[in-house]
Amino acid sequence: MRVLLTGGAGYIGAHTVVELIAAGHEAVIFDDFSCSSPVAIERINEITGTQVCNRTIDVTDAEAVRAGIDETGPFDAIIHLAARKAIGESVSLPLEYYENNVGSTIVMLAAMREHGISTFLFSGTGTVYTHQEDLPFVETSRTGLALPNPYSKSKRICEEIMADFARTGPDRRLIGLRYFNPIGAHESGLIGEDPQGIPNNLMPIVARVAAGILPQVSIFGRDYDTVDGTALRDYIHVVDLARGHLAAIEHAERGMHFYNLGTGQPSSVLELIAAFEEASGRQITVVDAPRRAGDAQATYCLPDKAHVKLAWRAEFGIGRACGDYWRWQQQNPEGYRS
Amino acid sequence: MRVLLTGGAGYIGAHTVVELIAAGHEAVIFDDFSCSSPVAIERINEITGTQVCNRTIDVTDAEAVRAGIDETGPFDAIIHLAARKAIGESVSLPLEYYENNVGSTIVMLAAMREHGISTFLFSGTGTVYTHQEDLPFVETSRTGLALPNPYSKSKRICEEIMADFARTGPDRRLIGLRYFNPIGAHESGLIGEDPQGIPNNLMPIVARVAAGILPQVSIFGRDYDTVDGTALRDYIHVVDLARGHLAAIEHAERGMHFYNLGTGQPSSVLELIAAFEEASGRQITVVDAPRRAGDAQATYCLPDKAHVKLAWRAEFGIGRACGDYWRWQQQNPEGYRS
Repeated sequence: MRVLLTGGAGYIGAHTVVELIAAGHEAVIFDDFSCSSPVAIERINEITGTQVCNRTIDVTDAEAVRAGIDETGPFDAIIHLAARKAIGESVSLPLEYYENNVGSTIVMLAAMREHGISTFLFSGTGTVYTHQEDLPFVETSRTGLALPNPYSKSKRICEEIMADFARTGPDRRLIGLRYFNPIGAHESGLIGEDPQGIPNNLMPIVARVAAGILPQVSIFGRDYDTVDGTALRDYIHVVDLARGHLAAIEHAERGMHFYNLGTGQPSSVLELIAAFEEASGRQITVVDAPRRAGDAQATYCLPDKAHVKLAWRAEFGIGRACGDYWRWQQQNPEGYRS
Repeated sequence: MRVLLTGGAGYIGAHTVVELIAAGHEAVIFDDFSCSSPVAIERINEITGTQVCNRTIDVTDAEAVRAGIDETGPFDAIIHLAARKAIGESVSLPLEYYENNVGSTIVMLAAMREHGISTFLFSGTGTVYTHQEDLPFVETSRTGLALPNPYSKSKRICEEIMADFARTGPDRRLIGLRYFNPIGAHESGLIGEDPQGIPNNLMPIVARVAAGILPQVSIFGRDYDTVDGTALRDYIHVVDLARGHLAAIEHAERGMHFYNLGTGQPSSVLELIAAFEEASGRQITVVDAPRRAGDAQATYCLPDKAHVKLAWRAEFGIGRACGDYWRWQQQNPEGYRS
């Protein structure tokens, strides 16, 4: 298959490109490098021994997308990953999040229609589930209006638009993936997560503390009703996640279908930190902090639908993910700017 | 106040401009005339004895909006009415509906922020309410994901975006109006509803049957649990609705506030037809048809919040609205193309 990846130089995008090429597919990247680095492309080339075709394109710009596809197409599938993803920033800049995330999805769906591309995969989030009583989340678990931030809402709105669009052409294959918490890095240590500014997610903070770049990890809430009082998340190795994308486009069915991509095995904040300490051989200083508004006590899925329908399941545990992330961290202490 | 109206040449827009000017405000119209006619501007000028400033601008185009405001501003308020509104068309062209209705709202909210405009009024719909058990609908009645068409969803998404945006600036005044079913026309017969192609709503069909342009009115469902078996709607005279816009911007409070604009007095399909027969002196041929997917049995509101907070309430009944619509229909048998 010839696959167009928007945001293909990002954390999930770069790993997905590597897995696509390893499986014999051809990948083309559209990325505006506003939240990613062109160095990621060089690293993908190094890992795969290829020269990946890429264009600097803002995919909210319909004209630029049209010209880019005319030049680099045709394509069998679009994997639409380009998005802004910092939850805290989305609260202060909601218009930018809706414009970028919703606007780019409309542009790429219109491109699918215009260029006759049969398959479209959307990068969604498990934060669309709203009811803790539904744990573990399955694809039919309740979603709703009551999401805690514009980032999650923008992703849920894109799902709604896709579902409406799917009804206009029964031959179209639309996939909505709902990611849980991606961690880890490629085993080469050449590509990995490269947050801009101060990281928001647990894993990059833990890695920076292990590396001596940040002083400590804040534990936001010790009084949850969980195994050790800290929040539970379904951490999934980014390579497993990338392979989920591959499986999803290879097994795409007609219509609109949602799939959870997670391990089904939640870990607590303290368990993840302990795993990172073991993988890195470093001690990680933690400090207690109050719960954060909008944080759920637990988020994890039952990934059975993806297993049955896509013949996919996560293979790696958090120990392997921490080891891979630590290799990436050590080889690239300042990410792609190193 | 100096007020910018997007879609100001449309059905609701033209009546709102007339009421604004009558109340001593100044109106500027941005309209791309894709669903409206420049003749409406001439008619507004005739009614008001003024020359309303207007620019041909597609308000999904941020650059065009910026240039237009630079040229015609400053403004105290934006009334954002521009939207695509044909429910059936929205099912077949969902991307166009989301792009136009959501995209234009993001552009206009960004314009509010950029140009320091304090008040923003959004043209929403009572179809965002999801639970018939909540009748009559109040502003806190349940809304949700389960809306029957992309048009209604696009309007609900705009409300969500506005609410998130309101949290970023506590001094901003954001108003979400939720219209029930606008009917009627200005008493002059100079401005009124001018649907393109075959009309979708009951009133323009009834008027065309009365005028001999269409052969009959289909009654979609005679077996509803209502007074006469036909569906109930809260029909509101468009001049009342227009005055609701005026009241809303004059009484705008800080933050995001929603108001139902309806009469609170539902009428059945057969009651509306009978009122039109009386107003026009014509007999209207009806034919029974099955219920339509997505049609609610009853939709009407309790308009008390608008009464208390905006000092507004609907004054006209359906008899007056039918008379006014009939005058418009007779004077303009082909709408503004006559």
